[in-house]
Amino acid sequence: MTVEGIVSDPAEEGPGEYDVIIIGAGPAGLAAGIYARRAGLNCIILEKGVPGGQVLTSPLIENYPGFPEIPGMKLMDNMAEHARRYVDIREGEEVVRVRSGERFELATNSGKYHSKALILATGSSHRKLEAPGEEEMIGRGVSYCATCDGFFYKKKEVIVIGGGNTALTDALYLHSVECKVTIVHRRASFRADKHLQESVHSRKIDVLWDTVVDEILGKDEVTAVKLRNLKTGAVTAKPVNGVFVAVGEVPSSQLASELGLNMDAGGFVIVNQSFRTSVPFVYAAGDVSGGIRQIVAAVHGGAAASLSCFEDLTNPYYKRTE
Amino acid sequence: MTVEGIVSDPAEEGPGEYDVIIIGAGPAGLAAGIYARRAGLNCIILEKGVPGGQVLTSPLIENYPGFPEIPGMKLMDNMAEHARRYVDIREGEEVVRVRSGERFELATNSGKYHSKALILATGSSHRKLEAPGEEEMIGRGVSYCATCDGFFYKKKEVIVIGGGNTALTDALYLHSVECKVTIVHRRASFRADKHLQESVHSRKIDVLWDTVVDEILGKDEVTAVKLRNLKTGAVTAKPVNGVFVAVGEVPSSQLASELGLNMDAGGFVIVNQSFRTSVPFVYAAGDVSGGIRQIVAAVHGGAAASLSCFEDLTNPYYKRTE
Repeated sequence: MTVEGIVSDPAEEGPGEYDVIIIGAGPAGLAAGIYARRAGLNCIILEKGVPGGQVLTSPLIENYPGFPEIPGMKLMDNMAEHARRYVDIREGEEVVRVRSGERFELATNSGKYHSKALILATGSSHRKLEAPGEEEMIGRGVSYCATCDGFFYKKKEVIVIGGGNTALTDALYLHSVECKVTIVHRRASFRADKHLQESVHSRKIDVLWDTVVDEILGKDEVTAVKLRNLKTGAVTAKPVNGVFVAVGEVPSSQLASELGLNMDAGGFVIVNQSFRTSVPFVYAAGDVSGGIRQIVAAVHGGAAASLSCFEDLTNPYYKRTE
Repeated sequence: MTVEGIVSDPAEEGPGEYDVIIIGAGPAGLAAGIYARRAGLNCIILEKGVPGGQVLTSPLIENYPGFPEIPGMKLMDNMAEHARRYVDIREGEEVVRVRSGERFELATNSGKYHSKALILATGSSHRKLEAPGEEEMIGRGVSYCATCDGFFYKKKEVIVIGGGNTALTDALYLHSVECKVTIVHRRASFRADKHLQESVHSRKIDVLWDTVVDEILGKDEVTAVKLRNLKTGAVTAKPVNGVFVAVGEVPSSQLASELGLNMDAGGFVIVNQSFRTSVPFVYAAGDVSGGIRQIVAAVHGGAAASLSCFEDLTNPYYKRTE
């Protein structure tokens, strides 16, 4: 694209100067890019790896409306191609430092950039079990998202690993879609909210207390897990089709910290309904901003962040510092 | 689908009994249906017309990530087909009355329904100019959404009709995408926020004050508008490619009123970030809940509403009345 942003005063622009820089090219960042450029903003997407984000690890997506069934990689290829019609995606460029001043200044592993606004779409990562077999079986029985993948395991035997709100919500969700659910928890009690504990109890969902998963077994697909009771030391094999790991989600909020954004206890960036953060001209969307970890939420966040950014950049009263 | 909702106690169920009823089959309602059924909720979508909502009137959608270019009707066919894999869509069933009690009771033009929860996805409609040529030229030069269609009019001559925040925001947006913009306003001053007025002024966007559009002219596409000055009575023809009507958006919030939901001054249903309304077990998504009037926002709202509904229905402490 050769069109320059017309919110910018062209005289102020040089190489590496943008109205807005989007960090991350998952669904949130790509949607942000489409909307920002369609609004006439001069922008770029910086992506430390390749476009797609966590969706790339999903063998099949069934809940992005319009695509009844599509492999995660194919959906993200479509989205990246869509975004590239509007915006340059610089792959393999990791932002290593960000500073705010009169403009934002970003340093990547290979260059420097300046912008009037930033959209953080840096995502999050799943905390892993670090059990043998886990990595190899992602998408083949190992999942980190019950809302995304639960429906594939209808009437099948699954375990949920964890004891917090996410683990119990996942267990209730999987029970609701008629999975045969067992919760595996390393402690003797849950830290989840009381109402979740009661719901799990009243639905008679099995719980294995004081138990850890030592190994995930299977060839092409998960067939069993090796469990170890931490109190007795007893090791058993349990046949299962699905392993839902719910031991924590880690937002990629290093840059958010550097910018001094307000974050919640889990490190997720706090945004309002227009996806503005606590710092003027900084927006956040997708998994780094919490909420439901779904593609629909990410594309909405990215789009809304860009429209908010457009509004703020055209508003002569909206200032960097309050 | 024959699977019964397992959040429900089957003993309580009869014909017309659901965990959740979704009203409206635009992108918000369809997404809600997909997510509700995937969560195991027993649900149905009631749609007074045919599925698709306002998107059906868009000849081309370019900003729903994953589809670089798709006619609105085709996209909504895809979404409706996607939703029908999970949920029954009753077309031509208009909800004429809703009552809340121990359960919600709905009467349509052809039946009665009961549910534990409701998702309102009833949409909104554009206030029309009521000028000759307007209706015929929708999608052929007449648009009600600058964010959706502005990019098609790059470097072209467009007018924006109206004097409120939406009209001025649209004018700025269109100016930013390099349209040649003129605002046509029936009064001698804008009621829009001061910063929008200043931005319009500083960008030297033309304004025709005290002027109305008497007719929209063109054969296959808009070619001109007939303008009339209310003070002088002078009638002129102005050649234009695009007519952006921004004289108001009317939410379809009749049912929301009956339910006593909190609404804003414009009649849009107020929701929080999880798309819960002010009344327990009632959720709202899509255009009826305000926000950016975009497909990405609607699908997110519908999905999130269903997940919130699932949480609330499984929570023994969450009660109908506080």
